[in-house]
Amino acid sequence: MSTIGFIGLGIMGAPMAGHLVAAGHHVTGYDVSSAAVGKLAAEGGQGAANVAEAVRDAEIVITMLPADPQVEEVFFGEDGVLATAKPGTLYIDFSTITPGTSARVAEAGRERGLRVLDAPVSGGQKGAEDAILSIMVGGAEEDFAAAAPIFEAVGRTYRLVGPNGAGQVVKAANQLVVGGTYALVAEAIVLMEASGVDAAAGLDVLAGGLAGSRILELKRDSMLAREFTPGFRIDLHHKDMGIVVSAARDAEVALPLGAQVAQLVAAARAQGHGSLDHSALLKVVEALSGRNA
Amino acid sequence: MSTIGFIGLGIMGAPMAGHLVAAGHHVTGYDVSSAAVGKLAAEGGQGAANVAEAVRDAEIVITMLPADPQVEEVFFGEDGVLATAKPGTLYIDFSTITPGTSARVAEAGRERGLRVLDAPVSGGQKGAEDAILSIMVGGAEEDFAAAAPIFEAVGRTYRLVGPNGAGQVVKAANQLVVGGTYALVAEAIVLMEASGVDAAAGLDVLAGGLAGSRILELKRDSMLAREFTPGFRIDLHHKDMGIVVSAARDAEVALPLGAQVAQLVAAARAQGHGSLDHSALLKVVEALSGRNA
Amino acid sequence: MSTIGFIGLGIMGAPMAGHLVAAGHHVTGYDVSSAAVGKLAAEGGQGAANVAEAVRDAEIVITMLPADPQVEEVFFGEDGVLATAKPGTLYIDFSTITPGTSARVAEAGRERGLRVLDAPVSGGQKGAEDAILSIMVGGAEEDFAAAAPIFEAVGRTYRLVGPNGAGQVVKAANQLVVGGTYALVAEAIVLMEASGVDAAAGLDVLAGGLAGSRILELKRDSMLAREFTPGFRIDLHHKDMGIVVSAARDAEVALPLGAQVAQLVAAARAQGHGSLDHSALLKVVEALSGRNA
Amino acid sequence: MSTIGFIGLGIMGAPMAGHLVAAGHHVTGYDVSSAAVGKLAAEGGQGAANVAEAVRDAEIVITMLPADPQVEEVFFGEDGVLATAKPGTLYIDFSTITPGTSARVAEAGRERGLRVLDAPVSGGQKGAEDAILSIMVGGAEEDFAAAAPIFEAVGRTYRLVGPNGAGQVVKAANQLVVGGTYALVAEAIVLMEASGVDAAAGLDVLAGGLAGSRILELKRDSMLAREFTPGFRIDLHHKDMGIVVSAARDAEVALPLGAQVAQLVAAARAQGHGSLDHSALLKVVEALSGRNA
Repeated sequence: MSTIGFIGLGIMGAPMAGHLVAAGHHVTGYDVSSAAVGKLAAEGGQGAANVAEAVRDAEIVITMLPADPQVEEVFFGEDGVLATAKPGTLYIDFSTITPGTSARVAEAGRERGLRVLDAPVSGGQKGAEDAILSIMVGGAEEDFAAAAPIFEAVGRTYRLVGPNGAGQVVKAANQLVVGGTYALVAEAIVLMEASGVDAAAGLDVLAGGLAGSRILELKRDSMLAREFTPGFRIDLHHKDMGIVVSAARDAEVALPLGAQVAQLVAAARAQGHGSLDHSALLKVVEALSGRNA
Repeated sequence: MSTIGFIGLGIMGAPMAGHLVAAGHHVTGYDVSSAAVGKLAAEGGQGAANVAEAVRDAEIVITMLPADPQVEEVFFGEDGVLATAKPGTLYIDFSTITPGTSARVAEAGRERGLRVLDAPVSGGQKGAEDAILSIMVGGAEEDFAAAAPIFEAVGRTYRLVGPNGAGQVVKAANQLVVGGTYALVAEAIVLMEASGVDAAAGLDVLAGGLAGSRILELKRDSMLAREFTPGFRIDLHHKDMGIVVSAARDAEVALPLGAQVAQLVAAARAQGHGSLDHSALLKVVEALSGRNA
Repeated sequence: MSTIGFIGLGIMGAPMAGHLVAAGHHVTGYDVSSAAVGKLAAEGGQGAANVAEAVRDAEIVITMLPADPQVEEVFFGEDGVLATAKPGTLYIDFSTITPGTSARVAEAGRERGLRVLDAPVSGGQKGAEDAILSIMVGGAEEDFAAAAPIFEAVGRTYRLVGPNGAGQVVKAANQLVVGGTYALVAEAIVLMEASGVDAAAGLDVLAGGLAGSRILELKRDSMLAREFTPGFRIDLHHKDMGIVVSAARDAEVALPLGAQVAQLVAAARAQGHGSLDHSALLKVVEALSGRNA
Repeated sequence: MSTIGFIGLGIMGAPMAGHLVAAGHHVTGYDVSSAAVGKLAAEGGQGAANVAEAVRDAEIVITMLPADPQVEEVFFGEDGVLATAKPGTLYIDFSTITPGTSARVAEAGRERGLRVLDAPVSGGQKGAEDAILSIMVGGAEEDFAAAAPIFEAVGRTYRLVGPNGAGQVVKAANQLVVGGTYALVAEAIVLMEASGVDAAAGLDVLAGGLAGSRILELKRDSMLAREFTPGFRIDLHHKDMGIVVSAARDAEVALPLGAQVAQLVAAARAQGHGSLDHSALLKVVEALSGRNA
């Protein structure tokens, strides 16, 4: 069992840290919310007063933070991970951030003797609570191997997909395909409904053939019923589409559909649907055709 | 068993007519290719010299034709189906055409006492040969019921999705989602490869989560290997995207992604990939980013 | 002076026919509206009871009709232009239709000895009334020369741009650029307003530099004031974007922006703005960002 | 006449600093290239060994730098403008950067008693050399008034368009419209050429009507001749489209065309046309339709 410093005890981080405690690890956690820290302590972990206290004695440091600025501050900041962690520490960042930031973190860490993995996850809050996350990992093979017990404790599948930053690229690719598939299904629904077609029957046919997808399987009924309880919020998908667009710039590729999906997600947010499930892209597609009266 | 007139004995129509013969129906077939007619005769059907001869004595008339103009000619033309079929005849059009044309055909047919169904299929040549097509049917419930033995003989699933034209709308929605999913997967591949990521590993992760789809399952390996043997040709998908765009105009809806997918498919054709599999959208996405050297 | 048959006396055709009467031509007009026919007769022209009567004795036949189906009916229909016009007749179609239909009309006409020009115009109702239309002409050089007196009477500039159908292609290109420029200006306005910028001042700067355009010059103030009195209606621009998309298919080219503009115009119409000026694309762009409360 | 510190003596900054010297100002310049510094000294200015030396005694500090990181370093960096400039100094940033960075610079400056303007320009190298730049200014009215002599010396038109950051937003809006117009004209050319139309004649017609624009006027001939000598490089327009997309995110608006234009510019760069004129978007549109053999 390992001594772990865990920073970021939000709706994802809290259950993940809990699973690590349950697996027998010695977990010291820190969050800007002292309530979150207290909750971890109550569950058998240990609370820290700041990042440095969580990191100082850890063999493994884990972060699960909202976006690039928080990761940059926690990692590069005064008394941050970089300044505090012992050489040889394994640093696993589960946050979803831009590949470029992950690569910079890894490079800076390596220079100080840290072993760094970017390990964004998919599966959402429910995946974190049930310890069935999918984990996309970028970094060195031996560090990936060393992190296996951690991944086992919080996820169901985990995969090394390339060097540092690669995990973030795969997560970005995932969010591109997920967002795009929602938009396509939304367009299919709007086209069918506006044409006087039985959309439920139509989606059944689509789901059974080459158009079939996990989204059609899981979200068909809720989309037809206009139930948009999250799940995964538009606001978060908007953040992620920003990463997709940024990753495409860094990779020097053009993504004609990805860029359009990013605008539709931005529109969903601008239209006030930021806290709905990302399947609420349907509302944007409907409104575009004046079908939201 | 029924007396059937079958018009259009191409790569789809020929095996479908063959299955009907095998099921015990009395099938008289016609095609512009006399070789195709001869082949049906050799398989136990009967050859006709023209449309009228195939239609005249039929209880059920079936067409499986390339596009709107052929359906219009065979149905509305001199000595065509409309002019020749007996009142009460069940007319099933398996062709993929615009919903508007299907609706006009149905209306004209009804005025002459015909019972009309639009019944486009998915599953391609292999689905026709193996009699496992998916069939999307527009029309009246009793006509759908009457057509069941025909659908049983050539397909695996069939579904009434609305009034006349509805079958075509669902087929259009299907092709929209299929074409769009190919484009999304292509963008994901290009993004990952250009970022130095192990794209095969990345697609494995995507396939296992919310981004998963039939296309990822069936086409991941061939796309990564750049094997574009059809399958379903870009040329045909280009025709179908024309129907999507046209159906959207008729329904007075805007399809921002659908329109973009239509342009990518048009680009694939313009770039000379018309006879490749539709997964060759990947070549367009690659070329856009200069990655096809 | 010539004997002219003029079919289509709507808001464009009526003033055009009037200018031809005023120029001293002998004009026999026909329209489905007998009131329109009566009005031409009152202005010194002659009324006809049907197409054939207007065409029979004409040296020049002119049509100014809403769309492809009307042109096809008037030209190819029973007792239509093709059936009635004398060999050698010059046929000028001012309608905006698909290049393919213009080409088919020209080919059929040629076989019967007619001389055919497609000559769509820009400038709108006001341009027709003031006889200052721009005319884009497709056809043979000698026919273009023969039509000069007609073009002089109704337009300010006219230009031979290629063989039959070419006039329509240029008109399509024009509508693509016009629609697209409106959308770009709309996006610029929404971006500036949402950012707390003085959009009027900003557009002044844009108008004075490389971003300058006729649209910025003429429509800046009305767009900022949200005054959308037509002008040229969204409904008509929607029809024209259909021609753009269709012309692109025929030419086997992909138009990524054109396709997107077509969807925005379709959205404007679907949102109920069909009878507003085409600058009302701004309403679609605003609504997309939830800025239309 | 003022004592000016001028940082950034590149192809834009060098002639601008020269005009200020010529206008009688006392200009101390700094650049990472000592050759550029030497050139200014030879022209009657004064060279500085670092930022602080240029800024220390200045009444007005000017920067003309490539992008956000350089502005951030020169302004916020150790011995940078913020640390060195006297309270009351007028700081004018001519760089094209994100509105958000301009706003942060202004806020930090204000706290230290600096008066800050963002003042991005259009007109390019030639505009800088001929002192005919257009200047879009964000900031306070009195600071704008104080900067007038500077703007007079380097530009032809200058306009206060809102609070700090507003100049950048207007510049972004400008680049959005410019890039989009190039793409539209490119699509018009490709459509006409692929249709067998005389594109030069067609563009003449477009230029004379509602589709007319500065770009059609200035770039029609060079685009038709495929002459893409810059002008303004694709690489720079790519940077600017990144600002457009980022500004749209900050303003919480969706830009469907802007996002697509950004992808086309990205494609131009990815296809190796980064150092061509931005009118080379035509090459991307051509290649998409396989018309670049």
